[in-house]
Amino acid sequence: MPVPEIPWFQSASRRRRYLAGISGGADSVALLHLLHRAGFRDVVVCHLDHGLRGQASAGDARFVEKLAASLGYPCESGKADVQAMIRETGDSLETAARDARHAFFAACSRKHRCPRLLLAHHADDQAETILWNLLRGSRGLSGMRAEQVLQMDGKPVECLRPLLTMRRDELLAWLVSEKIAWREDASNAEPIAARNRLRNEALPLLSDIARRDITALLNRAADSSDELRVIERWAVEQAAALDPQGRLHVPRLRTLPREVQSACLYDYLRTSGVPELSRDLVARGLTLLDADGPPAVNLPGDRVLRRRAGRIFIV
Amino acid sequence: MPVPEIPWFQSASRRRRYLAGISGGADSVALLHLLHRAGFRDVVVCHLDHGLRGQASAGDARFVEKLAASLGYPCESGKADVQAMIRETGDSLETAARDARHAFFAACSRKHRCPRLLLAHHADDQAETILWNLLRGSRGLSGMRAEQVLQMDGKPVECLRPLLTMRRDELLAWLVSEKIAWREDASNAEPIAARNRLRNEALPLLSDIARRDITALLNRAADSSDELRVIERWAVEQAAALDPQGRLHVPRLRTLPREVQSACLYDYLRTSGVPELSRDLVARGLTLLDADGPPAVNLPGDRVLRRRAGRIFIV
Repeated sequence: MPVPEIPWFQSASRRRRYLAGISGGADSVALLHLLHRAGFRDVVVCHLDHGLRGQASAGDARFVEKLAASLGYPCESGKADVQAMIRETGDSLETAARDARHAFFAACSRKHRCPRLLLAHHADDQAETILWNLLRGSRGLSGMRAEQVLQMDGKPVECLRPLLTMRRDELLAWLVSEKIAWREDASNAEPIAARNRLRNEALPLLSDIARRDITALLNRAADSSDELRVIERWAVEQAAALDPQGRLHVPRLRTLPREVQSACLYDYLRTSGVPELSRDLVARGLTLLDADGPPAVNLPGDRVLRRRAGRIFIV
Repeated sequence: MPVPEIPWFQSASRRRRYLAGISGGADSVALLHLLHRAGFRDVVVCHLDHGLRGQASAGDARFVEKLAASLGYPCESGKADVQAMIRETGDSLETAARDARHAFFAACSRKHRCPRLLLAHHADDQAETILWNLLRGSRGLSGMRAEQVLQMDGKPVECLRPLLTMRRDELLAWLVSEKIAWREDASNAEPIAARNRLRNEALPLLSDIARRDITALLNRAADSSDELRVIERWAVEQAAALDPQGRLHVPRLRTLPREVQSACLYDYLRTSGVPELSRDLVARGLTLLDADGPPAVNLPGDRVLRRRAGRIFIV
């Protein structure tokens, strides 16, 4: 079986260093082998034991260390106690596991002076994430980005997901054809009941109802939504609704369609650091544009959005 | 129980005539009673028997005629043989049922000189439609519009959906509290297996997984997608990528982000009547902008998208 073609590999520099988050599950094992075959030599394998799989965890760590050694890559192994973090902070499993990973990857990033982290998410993970975000009330459809800078423990880390267009089956078929071993269940470092149910119940049911491959459909639909968001950002720039002092210019705003006003106000509030932005809050903010609207709208955190002398600004 | 508040009722003129599509099911019966209580007097009840429910159909028609008479509304009853249409045209049940309704409503619209048609779709129908469109590969999320002009049998008919923000449960609770009767199953004039499975299996499963009211979430997410599409249309206007002859202006296009170029080309192809527009086709069209791209790209229907002298146009 031919080696799967990864578009990102074509343009990525082999001379740079990359961190790679490797659980030992099929997806990340495939990523590591594919990197090696594609000639990436300066890769640091980063493996975090979340402390959630008991004895099996130690086996995962040994497996990843051996794998790294066999490919000639250095390996960083970390250990977190996510259950203890949950007891301490009251956070959800998802949040605690993410914080543990972020702290670990940030430490690896500092130690190896490398701001780039490769992650093994693929198109099936993406479909699950899109549906998951939809169920949590995302704006439109949104999934993971192929390239995204995340703040991890105060450090900006560029997360790269080269496999995001690949299907899980393609990766598995390749591993099997190459007789490459992986750790079963190791990728389930996030045993989140809801996400597992999405994968095992919802996506198959929807595919069955649609008689189509819903994973591919969700991926394409999310791409369209991403495009629309880029267009929205461009529209906000074109709207040029800020005055030289960075306040919203009421006469200019009034010339724009309601939806563009909304996008401009959302952008203004977001860049001003207003937390908990909601559609409702933006809608209330827009009442400042009405001739008989109020002169001020309360914002979270004791701040106020005020209209005065043809400008809207935060005080 | 108080009469549910329907925002559309506040601004709609009581002096105009409206057609109302009434199946006899709970939703449309609620719509008709609510219209009557809100003081709408010039309403023509339009009931189509799709010929799909056998004996029960005649009962539905009698029920709707009596209901209309009791409220003092005239009633138009039509009868279609959707199964025969399917045998003749090979169309799907969904398409044939829609064509039958369109022909009937267009005839009612002509006879009563009324271009407005009220439909009883509510937020639960909307959630189902959003998911259904997603499963069929819609761009982003899209549902039904609260106001929409549809071409029915060559006649433009303005479809109005005043209940689109109401939940099915609210409507049912009100009907029960008012001791108003309806015909069970009559609203299932479209007994489409896939849609019924979405309603009865997929939406409950997703709500259970999310532990949230997925119907409300889907409705809000689709509203956001609609807003993004309005912003996209505005962005295409702002992009001003057409020359005075209505051809795409290559130097101007090259100043725009890829996603805006894509939206401009899509809009140009759509308004030029190019059928079967796909993301792929638009992506291939955009290669005309590359310095080393081809000078022409084939379009469906023996047409060609060509670049010449700094313009892109269809020949």
